[in-house]
Amino acid sequence: MKHPLPTSLLCTLLFISSMFTHANAQTRPRDLGLTIGVLPAGNLNAITDVAGVKVGQVTLLEGRNIRTGVTAILPHDGNIFQNKVPAAVFVGNGFGKLAGSTQVEELGTLETPIILTNTLSVPTAADALIDWTLAQAGNENVRSVNPLVGETNDGGLNDIRGRHVTKDHVLTALRTAETGAVAEGNVGAGTGTVAFGWKGGIGTASRKLPARLGGYTIGVLVQTNFGGVLQVNGVPVGEELGQYSFKQSLDKSSDGSCMMIVATDAPLDARNLKRLAQRAMLGLARTGGIASNGSGDYVVAFSTANRVPHSTDDRTTAVVVLHNDFVSPLFLGAIEATEEAIINSLFMAETSTGFQGHKVEKLPTEKVFELMKKYGRGK
Amino acid sequence: MKHPLPTSLLCTLLFISSMFTHANAQTRPRDLGLTIGVLPAGNLNAITDVAGVKVGQVTLLEGRNIRTGVTAILPHDGNIFQNKVPAAVFVGNGFGKLAGSTQVEELGTLETPIILTNTLSVPTAADALIDWTLAQAGNENVRSVNPLVGETNDGGLNDIRGRHVTKDHVLTALRTAETGAVAEGNVGAGTGTVAFGWKGGIGTASRKLPARLGGYTIGVLVQTNFGGVLQVNGVPVGEELGQYSFKQSLDKSSDGSCMMIVATDAPLDARNLKRLAQRAMLGLARTGGIASNGSGDYVVAFSTANRVPHSTDDRTTAVVVLHNDFVSPLFLGAIEATEEAIINSLFMAETSTGFQGHKVEKLPTEKVFELMKKYGRGK
Amino acid sequence: MKHPLPTSLLCTLLFISSMFTHANAQTRPRDLGLTIGVLPAGNLNAITDVAGVKVGQVTLLEGRNIRTGVTAILPHDGNIFQNKVPAAVFVGNGFGKLAGSTQVEELGTLETPIILTNTLSVPTAADALIDWTLAQAGNENVRSVNPLVGETNDGGLNDIRGRHVTKDHVLTALRTAETGAVAEGNVGAGTGTVAFGWKGGIGTASRKLPARLGGYTIGVLVQTNFGGVLQVNGVPVGEELGQYSFKQSLDKSSDGSCMMIVATDAPLDARNLKRLAQRAMLGLARTGGIASNGSGDYVVAFSTANRVPHSTDDRTTAVVVLHNDFVSPLFLGAIEATEEAIINSLFMAETSTGFQGHKVEKLPTEKVFELMKKYGRGK
Amino acid sequence: MKHPLPTSLLCTLLFISSMFTHANAQTRPRDLGLTIGVLPAGNLNAITDVAGVKVGQVTLLEGRNIRTGVTAILPHDGNIFQNKVPAAVFVGNGFGKLAGSTQVEELGTLETPIILTNTLSVPTAADALIDWTLAQAGNENVRSVNPLVGETNDGGLNDIRGRHVTKDHVLTALRTAETGAVAEGNVGAGTGTVAFGWKGGIGTASRKLPARLGGYTIGVLVQTNFGGVLQVNGVPVGEELGQYSFKQSLDKSSDGSCMMIVATDAPLDARNLKRLAQRAMLGLARTGGIASNGSGDYVVAFSTANRVPHSTDDRTTAVVVLHNDFVSPLFLGAIEATEEAIINSLFMAETSTGFQGHKVEKLPTEKVFELMKKYGRGK
Repeated sequence: MKHPLPTSLLCTLLFISSMFTHANAQTRPRDLGLTIGVLPAGNLNAITDVAGVKVGQVTLLEGRNIRTGVTAILPHDGNIFQNKVPAAVFVGNGFGKLAGSTQVEELGTLETPIILTNTLSVPTAADALIDWTLAQAGNENVRSVNPLVGETNDGGLNDIRGRHVTKDHVLTALRTAETGAVAEGNVGAGTGTVAFGWKGGIGTASRKLPARLGGYTIGVLVQTNFGGVLQVNGVPVGEELGQYSFKQSLDKSSDGSCMMIVATDAPLDARNLKRLAQRAMLGLARTGGIASNGSGDYVVAFSTANRVPHSTDDRTTAVVVLHNDFVSPLFLGAIEATEEAIINSLFMAETSTGFQGHKVEKLPTEKVFELMKKYGRGK
Repeated sequence: MKHPLPTSLLCTLLFISSMFTHANAQTRPRDLGLTIGVLPAGNLNAITDVAGVKVGQVTLLEGRNIRTGVTAILPHDGNIFQNKVPAAVFVGNGFGKLAGSTQVEELGTLETPIILTNTLSVPTAADALIDWTLAQAGNENVRSVNPLVGETNDGGLNDIRGRHVTKDHVLTALRTAETGAVAEGNVGAGTGTVAFGWKGGIGTASRKLPARLGGYTIGVLVQTNFGGVLQVNGVPVGEELGQYSFKQSLDKSSDGSCMMIVATDAPLDARNLKRLAQRAMLGLARTGGIASNGSGDYVVAFSTANRVPHSTDDRTTAVVVLHNDFVSPLFLGAIEATEEAIINSLFMAETSTGFQGHKVEKLPTEKVFELMKKYGRGK
Repeated sequence: MKHPLPTSLLCTLLFISSMFTHANAQTRPRDLGLTIGVLPAGNLNAITDVAGVKVGQVTLLEGRNIRTGVTAILPHDGNIFQNKVPAAVFVGNGFGKLAGSTQVEELGTLETPIILTNTLSVPTAADALIDWTLAQAGNENVRSVNPLVGETNDGGLNDIRGRHVTKDHVLTALRTAETGAVAEGNVGAGTGTVAFGWKGGIGTASRKLPARLGGYTIGVLVQTNFGGVLQVNGVPVGEELGQYSFKQSLDKSSDGSCMMIVATDAPLDARNLKRLAQRAMLGLARTGGIASNGSGDYVVAFSTANRVPHSTDDRTTAVVVLHNDFVSPLFLGAIEATEEAIINSLFMAETSTGFQGHKVEKLPTEKVFELMKKYGRGK
Repeated sequence: MKHPLPTSLLCTLLFISSMFTHANAQTRPRDLGLTIGVLPAGNLNAITDVAGVKVGQVTLLEGRNIRTGVTAILPHDGNIFQNKVPAAVFVGNGFGKLAGSTQVEELGTLETPIILTNTLSVPTAADALIDWTLAQAGNENVRSVNPLVGETNDGGLNDIRGRHVTKDHVLTALRTAETGAVAEGNVGAGTGTVAFGWKGGIGTASRKLPARLGGYTIGVLVQTNFGGVLQVNGVPVGEELGQYSFKQSLDKSSDGSCMMIVATDAPLDARNLKRLAQRAMLGLARTGGIASNGSGDYVVAFSTANRVPHSTDDRTTAVVVLHNDFVSPLFLGAIEATEEAIINSLFMAETSTGFQGHKVEKLPTEKVFELMKKYGRGK
């Protein structure tokens, strides 16, 4: 009853969504000369630069009021429950409904894909992750699953109370997940989000450390839906365009959230992954984010370098781990990739009109590029 | 499709469940002379001794394989979202799926009732709590809800993969919640749980501080599903009956979980509630619990003494809080009430046969009382 | 034997230090037109804009090898042990020796002044804080003191292994603490520190919220000794000057630390102070800090709005606290004040030669102002 | 000036102390038939059952008012700074002054021996640990040391404000540390402590897992100085003897602290060591401890199975770690060893008269053994 569309139409919509996820009308800022940070980006400048990581997205653009979706991140291609990955969660500001955090903290592992969606659809997504896990070959006896689901609140553009995300949407995002380029902007879990007062969305970026620093890749994917005083590569865009938090009053426009997923192929254990996750908040800060009271700012970090078997007869394992002394370049990579992923989400988003006619403009990118020149950052 | 029963039969079953929740066949240990601790119990020796707290339970005993249920705890009778209560979560061991913990930690408040159920039904229960909250008068504009749902894994006696708990079950538990005596043993979320190798379940107890120590009440409700070396009021029952963790091998029988809810009318802020929550783990320890690797041991504590309005025009409020120097008797109360609630859950449970014919015996209470005498604890 | 100077000479040096602390040769960036952020600074643009807060500094510049000192921050003028202030600690990166953190976390209060010094002098400073507290009138029966001491490692310019800070130095800093302007740069605990490869030191700044946002003041004082990729008000100074972390190799030049003290007159309880403290890390990020592996980045936040009596006969107190909904402007204030305090520490520092002839250049401020113009930020 | 004794007399006293530490007048409870728990003790039933662990103690019994001391625990015989051990800290209740916790949490390693002493002597002990570390061969270039110092407050029997512990005492404890049996009761850091209203002190115990559970050893050493309702192996000794917290009034007699050190040869990483540390609190609970407001209850856990080099050219290392599934027996071992170590500290302590004539009786062990019989626990 939640979903009034016939299945065939739904499939069509999903197909359209799927198409959309690979053809952004916008150009990525880096392709326009906006280079953030001192480290080189990976090949795709996306979380999928970390080998094996896959992303799937379902975008719900239905009627006048539904502007939401699902973004799935899979750390590897196998059975994630049976072959867990080291992982950690850092809570930048906990006004959010992230499911699964305490078990990741306790056991240091991720045992499902990560789903991002809207605030009130977290239970649906968690239930779908359980479906997905129970149904996988090899999991016939699994009786406990820790689904990891993050969210931000798209209730400005989306009829969030209608909870239009279904388990099928989530399963479709999981099934259609791919390596390769990742669609950004108004897609998946970013379909209805708002950042710095402009249309936010999904963004991604990566950094590839030079060989002398280990050669590791760090990839970040964000769902941006937060406020503050926008700064693009150091340029005070929010101030120049006259739109920033508390400019006029104590509104709550600064509220919202940012979900950040950090992947790396560096052999970090859960402790160092938590430190890496914490650095993503520094990247958010560089864009002008303030982690306001109402913001749910969470970072999930995982490493693809090791697998932790769900069960084993071997009491001990020899795990290759990075020594503390060598993690700092990864920290810088996470900061830069997060900053750029957030900026990407803004540049790639488009104006959207949704719930009750509420309209959110896209970032005026031409003006921004003028400002970039004014502030010595343009080409 | 999850629930093959016609609605009318379902209603009948719920009715039977409801009946069951108020008529335990067993006698509570305290009524048999087993007095735990040095502080007096409250009137009902239940979490509902804290004025205003209500408990509702739905028990699912269907066919041969379904042994599960729902227990709802409501901190007060009003609109909890609009009038939140100070709250905190302590993670004793985080192998669990507790929903809602990070927001409670960040904001220091609870904004929904607490639901306990089985591991794989957490999403369903969370979704039902969202339904409940969105539907309440006064919440028409609410777009963000932080449902608090705890769980233990009843997969030994229950077809947990079938996920037989529905949103209706959860809503029924919420609607039928009452003040007054609380059913214990094989009821609600404790229907299919196992503790120390015997049938566990729901248990509750309370302590009422003497006036010289503040006169406050501390009530505890537990869902017991864990292992260790059972000790009843200091008597080595597990050893005497030859049933305890690692007796024979490295089985995982010690695994499982314990959810503990601590309520008080003392004016504690979130910081001191977290400390109070932490003390419940000391009560668990006194029963022989070991918080094994696979155990999800969580404590949620809340105070009914203050309300935190969801939104307010008043920047500041004058909040009455207890000075740190006066919290220790409350700590002792939480320890004793948790210990007794766990013991109650065991004494009040009954032998159960469930999933795939698996049978779990009730604690042999007569033998235990003989042991109590042997160890100088009987009458 | 640590201190080879006769007392008279020592006094002279302290006197000189004291003089120095009130007469910086440099001009503060804001006075040169560099305005950071969107919120107005307080009157002094210093932590001492928070009424009652006092700062005292002792600078040790002795011979060729001693470049260190002490900075003391007092939350109020009274007996701090008997009248504690609500406080919290946030650990941005815990490679540091901060004394006193766990008790602040548990009890939510600060009971001594805060001392900043060098890494290996933390015990000396803690011992001096105990001296100070035990000796205060009214503390005759005090048998437990939780000294709060932070540090960064000035071992590049200072003979840190010599541990030249004495208890007298610490007591002098405490005794000479004053309200009013605060010396910055190579003073006190910042005498020998290095930031972004240039001379760092002590910096301070403040923000005063407009009345519509509550009118509260947030003051920050920092001891800067860390690395990364320096950015001044968004301008890529580190890159332009060719000096930043990992430019050439995996050196550990990025290591170091940053101590940040945040004071406010807003009535925040310990929970919200911890959140405020966490925001200071976002200010650090805006300067290009990366919280590298070897960095001890700690924030201590306290509020002067309430006092918590050490002992009381009153079980409960009515405490005025800010509602969560109104904290976000304070967060922005803490971010901006931290960013500016760090920038101030760099602009106010001067070239220093110390331990074994090691020389650290001051930030080339003229070049920086040229860069500011190039990047559209100058006047 | 703190220490009015000539050096020669001091040496004599230290010699006497040293003698004392190896000749307890009391008999250990286990030798009298009191067996706690289900797991076998190690050979010595002491923390030194973990191979390589050494303990050194200096006892200060001087004049009428000085009743304090130092206990040093060394994880191995080598240069601990250069060859760190994985470690973790768990805060049971943070009313204490533990030095060094945040760096252990961040980096997951211990780089100095652990010192226990009285509350106001933590800075002195930390300074001595720095001396010790800087002076060790191989540490000539060390400029940063994280001393780990725990404490409890012996201000009832000891002139704590006099701060009579010197760096020499600490260095002597370090230098005289040995493998083998460990003195208990009124020795070292336990010289002036009080537990459950009777004389407390140093206690130790161990557990040796059977081969089928991994064969690992867990050793615990405690400094007991806390309150509650004493229970000896389940027998209600406190109640029977009429001495327990809050019996009469809201005194603060329950306050105090307990430092617990847990060593193991199992290959646990920092994350699992933190979990192991947390279990020690469950052992404390089994003795009737309540972790009252004024208690500083800290656990430090370390593993001797791996070494983490201070610096290395190898980016990565292959570390052997125990899989999560196999840690539970270690948890049980930590619980039992902590319980027994606390009980040992009480049984081995002797009546003491100290500061201002204050006298604390030893536990009336004969009466306790009568109670053990009454409660079916005696031989």
